[in-house]
Amino acid sequence: MRIGIDIMGGDFAPHNIIQGAIDAQVQLPDDVQLALFGDREQVIAYCHRVHFDPSFFDIVHTTEVIDMNDHPAKAFQQKTNSSITVGFGALNAGDIDGFASAGSTGAMLVGAMYTVKPVEGIIRPCIATEFPLLTGGRALLLDAGLNADCKPDVLYQYGILGAIYARDMNNLDNPRVALLNIGAEEEKGNLVTKETYKLMHGTTDFNFVGNVEANQLFSGEVADVIIADGFVGNIVLKQAEAIYVLSKKLKIDNAYFDRFNYELYGGTPVLGVNAPVIIGHGISSPLAVTNMIRQTEQAIRKNLITNIKQALRHQNYQ
Amino acid sequence: MRIGIDIMGGDFAPHNIIQGAIDAQVQLPDDVQLALFGDREQVIAYCHRVHFDPSFFDIVHTTEVIDMNDHPAKAFQQKTNSSITVGFGALNAGDIDGFASAGSTGAMLVGAMYTVKPVEGIIRPCIATEFPLLTGGRALLLDAGLNADCKPDVLYQYGILGAIYARDMNNLDNPRVALLNIGAEEEKGNLVTKETYKLMHGTTDFNFVGNVEANQLFSGEVADVIIADGFVGNIVLKQAEAIYVLSKKLKIDNAYFDRFNYELYGGTPVLGVNAPVIIGHGISSPLAVTNMIRQTEQAIRKNLITNIKQALRHQNYQ
Repeated sequence: MRIGIDIMGGDFAPHNIIQGAIDAQVQLPDDVQLALFGDREQVIAYCHRVHFDPSFFDIVHTTEVIDMNDHPAKAFQQKTNSSITVGFGALNAGDIDGFASAGSTGAMLVGAMYTVKPVEGIIRPCIATEFPLLTGGRALLLDAGLNADCKPDVLYQYGILGAIYARDMNNLDNPRVALLNIGAEEEKGNLVTKETYKLMHGTTDFNFVGNVEANQLFSGEVADVIIADGFVGNIVLKQAEAIYVLSKKLKIDNAYFDRFNYELYGGTPVLGVNAPVIIGHGISSPLAVTNMIRQTEQAIRKNLITNIKQALRHQNYQ
Repeated sequence: MRIGIDIMGGDFAPHNIIQGAIDAQVQLPDDVQLALFGDREQVIAYCHRVHFDPSFFDIVHTTEVIDMNDHPAKAFQQKTNSSITVGFGALNAGDIDGFASAGSTGAMLVGAMYTVKPVEGIIRPCIATEFPLLTGGRALLLDAGLNADCKPDVLYQYGILGAIYARDMNNLDNPRVALLNIGAEEEKGNLVTKETYKLMHGTTDFNFVGNVEANQLFSGEVADVIIADGFVGNIVLKQAEAIYVLSKKLKIDNAYFDRFNYELYGGTPVLGVNAPVIIGHGISSPLAVTNMIRQTEQAIRKNLITNIKQALRHQNYQ
């Protein structure tokens, strides 16, 4: 398999990205070829500096960079030789099997939505995030911020996407999918969650376990997959980030809080599009980049996209 | 002033409530008379047991209790001699100046909405909660869960209510009011927050400082008052509770995390109704009850309700 990596994106690009790719190259099985999109000279210079043979990489030379000040959609179209635009071209052509970048989130989403495009039957793709459970393992939360307003049928599909991702990527047999809500009972919630509960209740598309309240998110006792609209999901994600930042600022030394470190989780997958697309954190360290590449590798190896397509063809709520 | 306290509500009623009232009686100025609503015999027996003179209290004897299994609205109407129903009757008649209970939240809300009633001009009353800031002091979050779906004009009024509460109760000169959102920029958010931003932007009714993201809730650098609909507010509140429970479970000894202890905050005020109404936590300790009574006393002393009524008459967005 071939994994594409944008080496020009992220606050510490390209060095952190190249170092993360070197570390991943050492760890990954032999059937994985890493393709680096970006400035060839910088790759070669950095590799020589750290005594790593750059010929392990397939370097796709690009001359432009989409940066944080660019308008994502315009830049994606106009900077035709940017690492992200060229990367999505390769992904769409099948030259690479997945694409990962710690660069412009907006440009990555534009590429995912308009080049790779949503899987047939998906109303709206979403992005997912993970956080640690007290019982060990991770919970998956989606949507983490792509669609602020979601109708019930969109949330229902997030149940399908989340269940498949948690099964394939977190090795869970029958992941428990719960709707984030403000009460455990069916009749609790806002207009959208009440309707969503009705759609999810009794489904055979995934293992729906009912509502989960925010004080049970971390316990691990209720759910492996948490469904929320992108507004609520993004707020929960950022509040969880705040916990980690707080624990560091207060010099709290605790193994559980340490597991909130986003570097451990790779990146944010875009779910519901026709290829594995992973968006890394802007301030990605080499460790975060390595984990982002490993996550992309897993998505390809587990046939995540094929499994999602199959599930969408068989979804039975409509 | 006279403060009414339901001594029959809460998981450890009546003993914890009576003890909390005794502790408050000792602390409060002489112009405060506490009126206890509940079983007279139990008050007298408990006071004797702890060698406290029950004649300090005005005991309003009631014979019924609304418990957690009762339907709030039905029980409020049918249990006419319950401590909550009699308490609201006294509040509405002006026999007491504020009413506090750690009992049925539902029945307290029914009493607040249908006996005391919303302040003229208030579209929907709400409930508020507080959490600690890293910079010291507290932030006020509203709505904490009363109205899951809020239109922009309702959220705008929460800005007025929150600003007055934070000024009067937390002694802040010109509290910073922010809209909880998923980006700092004006154009970020879901449909409701985008419209709400437009209403709040440039208002003279309160000191609107723009959007606040969930990773800035605890820093104290952005806002003293956080506005959200009851769905989002309740999720943020419960996630904050989870932080405290986690820190205890993991035996983290940290002064900041300890300040998440709800016992320190008294209770949840119902804002936008015609009298001070405070709902305590179901598992209220004597300390929590004492703080709930002190909070009620402050609301009365600062003329919170009069100030809210005046602000509503002068609100200038419509």
